[in-house]
Amino acid sequence: MVKVAVIEGDGIGPEVVKATLQVLEELKKRYSLPLEFTFVEAGDRAKEKYGDPLPKESYQKILESDAILKGPVGETAADVIVRLRRELDLYSNIRPAKTLPGVPALKEDIDIVIVRENIEDLYIGAEYILPPTSVGQRVAIGTRLTSERETRRIAKVAAEYAKMRKNKVTIIHKANVMRVTCGLFREVAREVLEKEGVEVDEMYVDAAAMELVRNPHRFDVMLTPNVFGDILSDLAAQVVGSLGLAPSANVGDERALFEPVHGAAFDIAGKGIANPIATMLASAMMLEWLEMKKGMENGRKAAEDLRKAIEKALTDGKKTKDLGGELGTFEFTEEVIKRL
Amino acid sequence: MVKVAVIEGDGIGPEVVKATLQVLEELKKRYSLPLEFTFVEAGDRAKEKYGDPLPKESYQKILESDAILKGPVGETAADVIVRLRRELDLYSNIRPAKTLPGVPALKEDIDIVIVRENIEDLYIGAEYILPPTSVGQRVAIGTRLTSERETRRIAKVAAEYAKMRKNKVTIIHKANVMRVTCGLFREVAREVLEKEGVEVDEMYVDAAAMELVRNPHRFDVMLTPNVFGDILSDLAAQVVGSLGLAPSANVGDERALFEPVHGAAFDIAGKGIANPIATMLASAMMLEWLEMKKGMENGRKAAEDLRKAIEKALTDGKKTKDLGGELGTFEFTEEVIKRL
Ligand SMILES: CC(C)[C@H](C(=O)O)[C@@H](O)C(=O)O
Ligand SMILES: CC(C)[C@H](C(=O)O)[C@@H](O)C(=O)O
Repeated sequence: MVKVAVIEGDGIGPEVVKATLQVLEELKKRYSLPLEFTFVEAGDRAKEKYGDPLPKESYQKILESDAILKGPVGETAADVIVRLRRELDLYSNIRPAKTLPGVPALKEDIDIVIVRENIEDLYIGAEYILPPTSVGQRVAIGTRLTSERETRRIAKVAAEYAKMRKNKVTIIHKANVMRVTCGLFREVAREVLEKEGVEVDEMYVDAAAMELVRNPHRFDVMLTPNVFGDILSDLAAQVVGSLGLAPSANVGDERALFEPVHGAAFDIAGKGIANPIATMLASAMMLEWLEMKKGMENGRKAAEDLRKAIEKALTDGKKTKDLGGELGTFEFTEEVIKRL
Repeated sequence: MVKVAVIEGDGIGPEVVKATLQVLEELKKRYSLPLEFTFVEAGDRAKEKYGDPLPKESYQKILESDAILKGPVGETAADVIVRLRRELDLYSNIRPAKTLPGVPALKEDIDIVIVRENIEDLYIGAEYILPPTSVGQRVAIGTRLTSERETRRIAKVAAEYAKMRKNKVTIIHKANVMRVTCGLFREVAREVLEKEGVEVDEMYVDAAAMELVRNPHRFDVMLTPNVFGDILSDLAAQVVGSLGLAPSANVGDERALFEPVHGAAFDIAGKGIANPIATMLASAMMLEWLEMKKGMENGRKAAEDLRKAIEKALTDGKKTKDLGGELGTFEFTEEVIKRL
């Protein structure tokens, strides 16, 4: 049995997760996948119920699982995901940005993978207010952490992706200003990538944001520190069409968590109109990973099948409202299942 | 006399600055502007010549000037601009992003002003490598500074701009993760803006990057910490058409420095094909500021005239190569001068 902990999340979370589970149940039958789903409470509702967005019991269930599938979380998003990334050592965040058929994008045929460092940078939460002076105005200090060890690990992940693709990585940094932290990131990443025989170039983060709009085809694998990756991956998702389509994988050496990049979208929650594609694509990344790391047979095939079915549905004009279509969440899901 | 220190900069810097000075000379005549230009060496060439990208003598001349007009600097850009911003207390960076006639943009009629905090955040340069341990891998620490005093000042600047416009400011932050630093920024900025009677909303920086592409009309004045402002302003420049058109003003209480947002573009330097519009528009911001802060008569009128002339030239199809036109830097400059 392969145990998947499922966090439904808040807002549209339960809907898009339910839709994704319907598809996964179908794939389970067809490919005899040994998947076993366990629901785990986390997020705003867990906080309301138990006073903790990530209760001990949930955490324990997560520890006992082989993989985690997570919907978007609301107000408490950071309490759940930033903590899980760090505590479970999910040090890489893989965020593909790829155009889909029938979805208008800024340019055609974009295919980028952002490899975002996922546990360091300003995300470590080491911040404080200085003791007050007589002047009485507050001063806040945050800490940006960049370690050689972590940079080596994440650069290796970028190298792995590059080798499956065009063997090219663009290192994103701001080493002209953050000379020590970004300087270390750039230097170590370059060393690792060159040793791995990968072609390397680099770009300042401000220029990269501009280039993602001007000339996204210029990028293949982008390797970025945590904060820059957060910003650039939302941007890239929009460039290829919509944040509603962007999946992500938070991956460590033994554990991994898969989630949509988008948020809980409370304004459309409960209406059955949310687009489940991002979560479905995240589950496809999970199936692949389960084959690769946990030896689950047919994981890759099932993932491939799911992606193709989504693309076919879109090509046939089957779309949710956010993409200009007519279908609700579960009508669209039916169309995907029909095409598996 | 109003003394303007002129830093030509590197790459295409000397060309775009020369073009801008030609226009300013013409405006000087027409509006009897008491402008006096003094060239100041700074940047890559100063470093080569004197071993210092911002030699003492240059710095002295800058201190004696009423305003600074600066072209893009190359490798040593940060040494020059980050130092000047901090030492001269140029605490606000004003970056308008506005569509121009005849220049294709992502959407029509965008008109945004980014008010970027300009001296704190990770730009303070307080970074270091921890003493090595026996494991031998390096660890780098950077420091993010957010002070209440500085946040108050910059929020007031945003309020001033808002009052001249739609009385609305969007605070950009990432307070779900950087709870203390961004938390302080958000809290203090909100307090100041509300006290000033300005309508406030807020957005996470990742969502803002996405929204600049998806729905830029949603923004009017954006108030951002330094690093986020760096990234979003390059992005916004591209959204309205091109980084080659984006001006900026680094403004303190008594001093100000005006520069294009773009870099030195060494690949096209010396060819006479660079687009001087960003630097010209920066000089228009300077003329306005000189009237407002130094009492220079006709500054606003001259600025208005210059902007209109640039727009007319573009409307008439007079464009440099980067915009799909045929004109060189100085041919385009002639067309602007003709239309003053
Ligand atoms: C919810 C938030 C903490 C998170 C992040 O900043 O990493 C999200 O924006 C993301 O990109 O996954
Ligand atoms: C040159 C560099 C230090 C500078 C910055 O990061 O502020 C530039 O990108 C800008 O935006 O003016």
